[in-house]
Amino acid sequence: MEYSELLHNRRSIRSFTDMPVTNEILLELIKESTLAPNSSHSQIWKFSVVNSREMIRRVSDESKKNICRRIDDNPADYAKMYEAALRNPDYNVFYNAPALVIISGPADYRNLLVDCALCAGYLMYAAVARGLGTCWINLGADVRDTELRAALGLTDELRIVAPIIIGYPASIPPARHREEPVILKVIG
Amino acid sequence: MEYSELLHNRRSIRSFTDMPVTNEILLELIKESTLAPNSSHSQIWKFSVVNSREMIRRVSDESKKNICRRIDDNPADYAKMYEAALRNPDYNVFYNAPALVIISGPADYRNLLVDCALCAGYLMYAAVARGLGTCWINLGADVRDTELRAALGLTDELRIVAPIIIGYPASIPPARHREEPVILKVIG
Repeated sequence: MEYSELLHNRRSIRSFTDMPVTNEILLELIKESTLAPNSSHSQIWKFSVVNSREMIRRVSDESKKNICRRIDDNPADYAKMYEAALRNPDYNVFYNAPALVIISGPADYRNLLVDCALCAGYLMYAAVARGLGTCWINLGADVRDTELRAALGLTDELRIVAPIIIGYPASIPPARHREEPVILKVIG
Repeated sequence: MEYSELLHNRRSIRSFTDMPVTNEILLELIKESTLAPNSSHSQIWKFSVVNSREMIRRVSDESKKNICRRIDDNPADYAKMYEAALRNPDYNVFYNAPALVIISGPADYRNLLVDCALCAGYLMYAAVARGLGTCWINLGADVRDTELRAALGLTDELRIVAPIIIGYPASIPPARHREEPVILKVIG
């Protein structure tokens, strides 16, 4: 696919067909995502592949529970604005996507967020280039339950950065308006 | 350009020809970079365009000075490994690139690092698609001098996330080896 097509056609997708995504494809996307630039060539990113709606639901329920507790403890938590949805037992933060890839890395690594975000950007492009849709779901990142973390391969030192849902789009929303870039200064 | 070509040909470039990059192109790259996904459609990224080797040198000197102070205060600072270079007055952290785009955003924004990193990834792709080379220079991000910050348009609340050098590559290094992705678990 032409890059400009990819650039202009990528959307955050929140509605998927029933068509499953094979593990083979998911692993291919992951492999491509590791071509992302990263600090000091450290490649600290790690991946959990969740290709099961039942398991994705468990991750959603766990994350919702923990975020609701955060809101109880601190009403200034940003997730407060999503409280109504989060307290709805039927709400799946992953929008019933067929597949989820969780990118994590060592919580104490100085460039954890940046490196995993670059990797996630590449993963999303890899998916779009294959006709898949993706969305980064921040509300699905708060997984603390020991058993569930173990099922996802998340050892204690790992922090989830990017839970990315992946599937074949049922509908593709129009492009959202982008503000003109704020150029603080042009020197030279 | 085909996406797969972009994907496989992007490198971190640290050696540039003398050919200047126009402000017009730099602003075009920036505009494209704002098509990146971002949290809650908040578009918090801001841009300083430094298209002057003299000014780039000033930013380099300022950042080196501050990082050296950090190392003095805390020998465990990660930058300690670069100390010899940083204390060399001739060393330019920006590798004498002709142009620099600094991506910044509100220091207190909860997704500052992730959103600016996604934007930086798009900026780098936009450059490569036009035959330019880029490199993200973490060592150039520590700018504290009031006058220099003002010259860059950086108000107090803004934090530099991604200083990206841009220019026409004098040489393109071979691809660096990538580790096989660490797949923690495959469920389903």
